[in-house]
Amino acid sequence: MNISVIKIGGNIIDDVENLALFLKKFTAFQGIKILVHGGGKLATKLADKLEIKTRMIDGRRVTDAATMDIVTMVYAGLINKQITAQLQATGCNAIGLSGADAGLITAVKRSPIPVDFGFVGDISVEGIDAKRLLDILNLGLVPVFCPITVDRHGTLLNCNADTIARSIAVALSSSHSVRLIYCFEKKGLLADVNDENSVISSINSENCDRLKSEGVISAGMIPKTDNAFGALREGVKEVVIKSFADLDIDSGTSIKL
Amino acid sequence: MNISVIKIGGNIIDDVENLALFLKKFTAFQGIKILVHGGGKLATKLADKLEIKTRMIDGRRVTDAATMDIVTMVYAGLINKQITAQLQATGCNAIGLSGADAGLITAVKRSPIPVDFGFVGDISVEGIDAKRLLDILNLGLVPVFCPITVDRHGTLLNCNADTIARSIAVALSSSHSVRLIYCFEKKGLLADVNDENSVISSINSENCDRLKSEGVISAGMIPKTDNAFGALREGVKEVVIKSFADLDIDSGTSIKL
Repeated sequence: MNISVIKIGGNIIDDVENLALFLKKFTAFQGIKILVHGGGKLATKLADKLEIKTRMIDGRRVTDAATMDIVTMVYAGLINKQITAQLQATGCNAIGLSGADAGLITAVKRSPIPVDFGFVGDISVEGIDAKRLLDILNLGLVPVFCPITVDRHGTLLNCNADTIARSIAVALSSSHSVRLIYCFEKKGLLADVNDENSVISSINSENCDRLKSEGVISAGMIPKTDNAFGALREGVKEVVIKSFADLDIDSGTSIKL
Repeated sequence: MNISVIKIGGNIIDDVENLALFLKKFTAFQGIKILVHGGGKLATKLADKLEIKTRMIDGRRVTDAATMDIVTMVYAGLINKQITAQLQATGCNAIGLSGADAGLITAVKRSPIPVDFGFVGDISVEGIDAKRLLDILNLGLVPVFCPITVDRHGTLLNCNADTIARSIAVALSSSHSVRLIYCFEKKGLLADVNDENSVISSINSENCDRLKSEGVISAGMIPKTDNAFGALREGVKEVVIKSFADLDIDSGTSIKL
């Protein structure tokens, strides 16, 4: 069985037209598929309106109890159900899920030492119930995950959507052929950040080091490629980084071992 | 297959200790089961904080677009996921769902004529995808429904949780033996509203009319019994009205045809 795990970020969700365009293409996308969505600016806006202060440590947000309630409302409630409803209306039998649902994703609350980031969860492939997820896929349903998970004590936690997508892709790779597709606003990884048409069409472990030493893969792209190679080494067949608007065409940057 | 559809109202959800007590008993409750939860005061509190005015017509709330966003956040997001997470932590393999998920409940937006109540949905047994719901039950999962549904155009709608519970119970009755259990704060339907211990243990179509004419079933109880008999006439085996705290014991008012 070939499975595609597709992730969209907050920038796409924040734009009504972009989101609608993406969801139309996602519905048309053939094969067994899973959507993972990030958060977007709505949670920050709601926190501002409610005068809940965003506390940052080293440039990273602290998820206190009040903020956790907000992200649960916005990510698992509003965004997840709006996406699911739109997909249903276009003929995609979506089922909106958090990690808590059916025990699909169990996270571990990040240690408060050395820095207490609050209700933030770390997940790994061991936290994914792949068997249960396959049960849901076998019903012909299309899982739509928000980045809210739970630990084994029932505490809801805020997680990174990129990591959720990667962990799901890796967990399913032990029994299936999985492609992990990161959709964002650019057309792929760019050889020249100022030139939208300089997409690097393919990267593998051989040419990656050369591209790095030549400075073609530059600072901002290194975490993305490192993350992709991590997934590939754990069994994912291919990682694609592409534009949300090009989901239906062969495009973007293909990364293989 | 015997299935129990259990509904809890907002008053139970609003009290952290009562909710925890109920969920513990729900986890221990034997057999195939479905939970339907209402809303509670949290949505009103959030609307107040955001200074979204609650518009009422004839004593009934109008769900405008801003209010719809709030109930989606609170009911489908915060409450549904907190309940699901708590159930998971106590060993119940819950899956939180709205009507949009897997196309399980399709509602019809209420006509704006004569009164426009906004994003309010009416549901009937035809709106329930019983086959799909049975697929989920057959996976050993315990569905937990919030009162948010969707129409066939993808518009999210606010629905009455009592009606959702009834419609689910009726839809499953065509192939299974279904009990519908309404949990609230009182011990059952009371012969004397001032006496908590005056629970009417059983009502059937024969003694119901007599109890009405004698004034034992009084004004406030009539809609509840009418709703119960409606469900029974459509195939539900038994309707029980009882205390959330007594889910584990044989108690409350049993209503049969």
